[in-house]
Amino acid sequence: MTNRPDGTLSEEKVFKDPVHRYIHIQDELIWQLIGTKEFQRLRRIRQLGTTFMTFHGAEHTRFNHSLGVYEIMRRMIQTLEQKEAWDKDERLVALAAALLHDVGHGPFSHSFENVFDMDHEAWTRKILLGDTEINALLSKMDPRFPEKVAQVIAKEYDNKLLVSLISSQIDADRMDYLLRDAFYTGVSYGHFDMERLLRVIRTDSNQAVFKHSGMHAVEDYIMSRYQMYWQVYFHPVTRSAEVILTKILHRARYLMETGYTFRLNPSHFRTMFEGEATLTDYLKLDESVVMFYFQEWEDERDPILSDLCRRFMHRRLLKYVECTPEKLAEKKGKIAQSFEALGVDPDWYLVHDSSSDLPYDFYRPGTEPASERVPIYLLMPDGSKRELSRESDIVLAISGKKRTDHKFYYPGDVLDEAGNDHPEVIRIRQLLGSLY
Amino acid sequence: MTNRPDGTLSEEKVFKDPVHRYIHIQDELIWQLIGTKEFQRLRRIRQLGTTFMTFHGAEHTRFNHSLGVYEIMRRMIQTLEQKEAWDKDERLVALAAALLHDVGHGPFSHSFENVFDMDHEAWTRKILLGDTEINALLSKMDPRFPEKVAQVIAKEYDNKLLVSLISSQIDADRMDYLLRDAFYTGVSYGHFDMERLLRVIRTDSNQAVFKHSGMHAVEDYIMSRYQMYWQVYFHPVTRSAEVILTKILHRARYLMETGYTFRLNPSHFRTMFEGEATLTDYLKLDESVVMFYFQEWEDERDPILSDLCRRFMHRRLLKYVECTPEKLAEKKGKIAQSFEALGVDPDWYLVHDSSSDLPYDFYRPGTEPASERVPIYLLMPDGSKRELSRESDIVLAISGKKRTDHKFYYPGDVLDEAGNDHPEVIRIRQLLGSLY
Amino acid sequence: MTNRPDGTLSEEKVFKDPVHRYIHIQDELIWQLIGTKEFQRLRRIRQLGTTFMTFHGAEHTRFNHSLGVYEIMRRMIQTLEQKEAWDKDERLVALAAALLHDVGHGPFSHSFENVFDMDHEAWTRKILLGDTEINALLSKMDPRFPEKVAQVIAKEYDNKLLVSLISSQIDADRMDYLLRDAFYTGVSYGHFDMERLLRVIRTDSNQAVFKHSGMHAVEDYIMSRYQMYWQVYFHPVTRSAEVILTKILHRARYLMETGYTFRLNPSHFRTMFEGEATLTDYLKLDESVVMFYFQEWEDERDPILSDLCRRFMHRRLLKYVECTPEKLAEKKGKIAQSFEALGVDPDWYLVHDSSSDLPYDFYRPGTEPASERVPIYLLMPDGSKRELSRESDIVLAISGKKRTDHKFYYPGDVLDEAGNDHPEVIRIRQLLGSLY
Amino acid sequence: MTNRPDGTLSEEKVFKDPVHRYIHIQDELIWQLIGTKEFQRLRRIRQLGTTFMTFHGAEHTRFNHSLGVYEIMRRMIQTLEQKEAWDKDERLVALAAALLHDVGHGPFSHSFENVFDMDHEAWTRKILLGDTEINALLSKMDPRFPEKVAQVIAKEYDNKLLVSLISSQIDADRMDYLLRDAFYTGVSYGHFDMERLLRVIRTDSNQAVFKHSGMHAVEDYIMSRYQMYWQVYFHPVTRSAEVILTKILHRARYLMETGYTFRLNPSHFRTMFEGEATLTDYLKLDESVVMFYFQEWEDERDPILSDLCRRFMHRRLLKYVECTPEKLAEKKGKIAQSFEALGVDPDWYLVHDSSSDLPYDFYRPGTEPASERVPIYLLMPDGSKRELSRESDIVLAISGKKRTDHKFYYPGDVLDEAGNDHPEVIRIRQLLGSLY
Repeated sequence: MTNRPDGTLSEEKVFKDPVHRYIHIQDELIWQLIGTKEFQRLRRIRQLGTTFMTFHGAEHTRFNHSLGVYEIMRRMIQTLEQKEAWDKDERLVALAAALLHDVGHGPFSHSFENVFDMDHEAWTRKILLGDTEINALLSKMDPRFPEKVAQVIAKEYDNKLLVSLISSQIDADRMDYLLRDAFYTGVSYGHFDMERLLRVIRTDSNQAVFKHSGMHAVEDYIMSRYQMYWQVYFHPVTRSAEVILTKILHRARYLMETGYTFRLNPSHFRTMFEGEATLTDYLKLDESVVMFYFQEWEDERDPILSDLCRRFMHRRLLKYVECTPEKLAEKKGKIAQSFEALGVDPDWYLVHDSSSDLPYDFYRPGTEPASERVPIYLLMPDGSKRELSRESDIVLAISGKKRTDHKFYYPGDVLDEAGNDHPEVIRIRQLLGSLY
Repeated sequence: MTNRPDGTLSEEKVFKDPVHRYIHIQDELIWQLIGTKEFQRLRRIRQLGTTFMTFHGAEHTRFNHSLGVYEIMRRMIQTLEQKEAWDKDERLVALAAALLHDVGHGPFSHSFENVFDMDHEAWTRKILLGDTEINALLSKMDPRFPEKVAQVIAKEYDNKLLVSLISSQIDADRMDYLLRDAFYTGVSYGHFDMERLLRVIRTDSNQAVFKHSGMHAVEDYIMSRYQMYWQVYFHPVTRSAEVILTKILHRARYLMETGYTFRLNPSHFRTMFEGEATLTDYLKLDESVVMFYFQEWEDERDPILSDLCRRFMHRRLLKYVECTPEKLAEKKGKIAQSFEALGVDPDWYLVHDSSSDLPYDFYRPGTEPASERVPIYLLMPDGSKRELSRESDIVLAISGKKRTDHKFYYPGDVLDEAGNDHPEVIRIRQLLGSLY
Repeated sequence: MTNRPDGTLSEEKVFKDPVHRYIHIQDELIWQLIGTKEFQRLRRIRQLGTTFMTFHGAEHTRFNHSLGVYEIMRRMIQTLEQKEAWDKDERLVALAAALLHDVGHGPFSHSFENVFDMDHEAWTRKILLGDTEINALLSKMDPRFPEKVAQVIAKEYDNKLLVSLISSQIDADRMDYLLRDAFYTGVSYGHFDMERLLRVIRTDSNQAVFKHSGMHAVEDYIMSRYQMYWQVYFHPVTRSAEVILTKILHRARYLMETGYTFRLNPSHFRTMFEGEATLTDYLKLDESVVMFYFQEWEDERDPILSDLCRRFMHRRLLKYVECTPEKLAEKKGKIAQSFEALGVDPDWYLVHDSSSDLPYDFYRPGTEPASERVPIYLLMPDGSKRELSRESDIVLAISGKKRTDHKFYYPGDVLDEAGNDHPEVIRIRQLLGSLY
Repeated sequence: MTNRPDGTLSEEKVFKDPVHRYIHIQDELIWQLIGTKEFQRLRRIRQLGTTFMTFHGAEHTRFNHSLGVYEIMRRMIQTLEQKEAWDKDERLVALAAALLHDVGHGPFSHSFENVFDMDHEAWTRKILLGDTEINALLSKMDPRFPEKVAQVIAKEYDNKLLVSLISSQIDADRMDYLLRDAFYTGVSYGHFDMERLLRVIRTDSNQAVFKHSGMHAVEDYIMSRYQMYWQVYFHPVTRSAEVILTKILHRARYLMETGYTFRLNPSHFRTMFEGEATLTDYLKLDESVVMFYFQEWEDERDPILSDLCRRFMHRRLLKYVECTPEKLAEKKGKIAQSFEALGVDPDWYLVHDSSSDLPYDFYRPGTEPASERVPIYLLMPDGSKRELSRESDIVLAISGKKRTDHKFYYPGDVLDEAGNDHPEVIRIRQLLGSLY
């Protein structure tokens, strides 16, 4: 089947997708991008990191999500094209940016970025502009094409409308992940009427806006987002697994730096640990590789590394209690002391972790909101624009209310084994009970 | 929270599941079995092997499915208990068997079993009866408990009703996988009214039967099964990935047997290749490990191994045409010759693959059906039993009709690169066009 | 909001619909047709007649369904327009025909048509061409427009493609009612992948065809249709209510013809009974009117009319047994005799009712299929057409297999009241038990 | 099939329900209550009154909803019974109350109650205690049974737990109607995780409480409720139809009181108008009867009655603008004057209508909440109770915030016909534009 001179496929291709039913591919460029090895690699990186340990359904990958964001973008553009003409090239830039926005993600990004002081956005840029199959395809369109796509993803592109479609408080990325993560985890929150949102999207100078008649769908989206953050993304069990994962990486680096001899030489990690990873190194590092090492490290001589790996692989997670930073600061020393008496090294096993979320934000006088926090605007019947929280009571009620949740993680099994009568256990349980 | 003396949990535990909404755990034994490392390992083995290359949603694991089969079994027993008393122990045997029925599965089982002449059922038995965390828990119930569970799974248990609940033409295993695989792939087939089936299940001497009033739900189940087999399980693209996977394993073994020196020594595979794998070896072999090796082998010197691994990792699959075994036998020699002329080794790149399915079977005079093929019976209003296909026209229409599908796989990209004008390519295309 | 000169609305209007999510109205004509009193009247006529007595959810109306057929037609045309240009007028003819195809339906059409020797298609024609608000709007488009719409609905229009989109073995009408009736009754059959069907529809000379890649969606549609007919449309309880309804109408006519004086003069029925109903008379006769009379007639002196009405209003239906026409013919006399001995008039209370369905039909040599039975064709990858049952085993298995179901209805409550020991009751039960 | 001595059915009966999938009937009493003519009459009374004019899917009846409330109650009790023993009689009282709680509803209750100064709860009581089939069945259980059921429905029963299950801020009634109305209207709001709520329900002295682990399901329920009120129940188009309906009833009464001679004597309304309706009169008055009269009255000589009826039957509704009571009070006189100049009688065509809702309420110091406003309590892990809004930020954000919406209704078509250049039309449009 030969394709058309304008780059569209002679026959549309479809992927069956459980969230959007079908992903429709109409452009040869998109079809070929999906086939690159850098994009196929996303099949080996889970969308939600360690969440699968809490919600066993959450085994879906970034490959999955990236196709979804592309599809939503395609449909947004379809609506907008009915209202005004779109530049054909801008359309492809937008679609490619949607598809590739997460291409720089590595395994368990959240933890890796914490430990290695790197960010996946820099890697995305390298993949788009470096010596990759993706770059070759984009460059064939136009030598400046890779840079354009990179700019959209980095929110630095001139056409701010495009940027807003993919990175704002309500964009293709968030819409897909809320729906998709709700679908795979099986929670009943996270649903909103995307169909409706896609039909009421309009443009205003440099931003996507929503027709007022679709306000309730926007409200529902905001509420879904709120519920998903607290029910799924910040779930304390997921964070427990992440805490362990982070400690494993820290421990492995520490061992390497202190000259420990590994049974299995962590060659895939070495350049990462040393901050000298090349693009080739980085692209090799997927979740299969990480899991392979963790399994091998269960048999390392270092008792902390092997114990942490066993905990991660067999889901023997840390327990947690709610805490306030103040009370924790006050009592952490004592808790550590008691755990040490039980043979637990506090540096590797006791962790304070916090999550916080701002469900929706609007401009407030005197503050400069982050670029991501551009408010959502409604397009009123008279053509004017109004900021969402001025029209919606329910959004107003939660706007700007930052909520933070603090948890203290500790190895509960150690306490169970020592027995409830052990004086240190009694002491620890008392202290843990007084952190909130 | 301490549990009750009878082994039930003081407070039921739930897993959120996207297919059954919730998985309910009421017994301490089940809760602990889920926590064993042998069971947690199922998180690293996909339910549908290479299907994720065709349906990107199909990234779910056997962990996922095993919980589902357990839940269906729990609900079947709940219905049956309302009609007649159940032995408490038999209930736990049934639940444990449901949960553990797939615990012996390894990575990409289908291909591995083909290549290594092993079967996952033997490994299941070893895990249940060997030195494992699972065995320790089961034995604590009663020394004969592990053997009982193993017998149920092997269909050799005395209580044939139990066996039929988990292994018949309509059982907890099939019900879960049809619904689950439909859910994750996103296909619209595969749905049936499980709720209804679970309410109309009854027992007759040694088999589960279904009340006649639920016949249409049974019909729908049979139709779903039929559609899933041909739309999902036997999808030719999935089989293409499997064909490559099988060839990789064969090649690696061949290289090892012929003294090839690997850059990365395949220590995880060695005992498997030699037919001497211990339980420990086997349990280490999950899909992360396999993917790790395949990625490493992309850089092996052996051009066939590295090419096959690249194909698998980057989804550069083989193309296929439909064929009949007769026509293929006639022309395979010529096709092989032409491919060789293009530099392709026919032994490693040309494959005939067939799939076949018998959607539903009943006893036919003079034939002895396999044990799996016990017919489905309806319980009539007058208390008698009737075989399903005697009541259902639609089931009768497809009963006993075995369908086989033959495909011939070949490296289409080689033809594309050689160009459509190349005389060998012309010859090959002609031959491929005449295989059906 | 003024509309555009080309007749499209300046802003699309939407109806929220539980089946298709939204019904999109883009043309002023369609918007105005929905507002006519003849179309609004469809709100007072249930889609499924007496089915609500079996499935309490089935309270939806023809208004509901008509909007759905319109929406499917709109989407079919949208797909087809992407492949080839459509005449703007033909598009509106098609949409209007889809919207109005059922506009001539009266209350409980099935029973009324049986009793009054009329058909709703003739009334549809009168509404389109007579002195109605609908006619006024259609005529404003073009004096020949009403006739064109009428011809499409009557399957006599020149453009056979249009006809096939609305009246074939797989058309907008059937697609909507299967999905809608499944939705409202709550049965789990009846679902198929309409989204997919709408994307693979193509045209071939004068008929809609489906791309081969969508064959499984077509199969699923055929299976759904099969299940819905037997699970819902021909449900014996629904037919029981219909049997009573038919008898009420017959009785009322009989009483009128024999000079009986009604407490409430059946003025709304008189012209219908006499075969002289005008369009005005007909349009007044909705289900509220029928129900009003039936409630009033509960208090009529005629014991048969009042009893039948009470049965209908309070759902005191007739019981049924399965029968063969032969055995029934043989024994009907004796059954009637015994019922008469119990005070039941056989002419008004004993009914033989049959339903039959041909799930899918193809051309067979030597037979001339009815116009509705044009086979479904698949468009093969090579551009040729193949009849569905030649590609689909499952459709072949049920093709051309007509199935008929015979039931014998009788007043079971009379038997219960007489008591199981009453000799006539014993005789009747014996006879009823021998009819199949 | 004979039933068991304890009053349970020998074989459970099921109704297919699109919302709960199946309604399960296990008790003979319930089965027989459903068969009474007073309960069957609920099939002729829509659940949502005039909402079907806004959401065409909302054609479902109170029959439908009543079965749903019963089913939820049945499942609540099922959960509670697992925790503590229930009195068998109390269970039946609760189930009967759930089933019959709306049995006194008449056609378009909201409007009828406004006009006739009656309330459906009094009629419910009369049906339970008067000479009805329902009373006969209940009395057969125990002479005090009817009174008990009536007390539960009237919230005066001793067992406050029972009352709270059916009438509180989160009860079987509300749960069913939110889910059911969302289902039939097709809106995407209104869904919450009932399954979860039913599993975490517990009792505390005299009230249902919810386990803290189910808090998010409760939050979601509160949000659904909020969205449904504003998106569906208070929809201005629905209220427009209700405004007309109310005016029709007022007009008919006015005409009767002033000696007008009707073409069709409104015998069904007479006793209602005169405040002397008997139970028999009331039970005859269903929506078919009302619609019958309205259709007949289209032909009455009184121009206002006939015009209002035409508007209602053909959905020619009044337009509306948002207003504040103050501004409306100021300008209503002028608006009325101008409308009169256009021949519109302000008393019958200009209406101020307001709706208000309190999404969730808790006890506030110094105020006595209405009995319906008992707060929702969470059962904490330590066994204590906490009021919902103290745990849930999102509920706190909307608690106690009463919102009122004022609309002014007027005949927009009269303005359109007079033409936009007409000086009175210009004046009216100006005035209408200044009401908010």
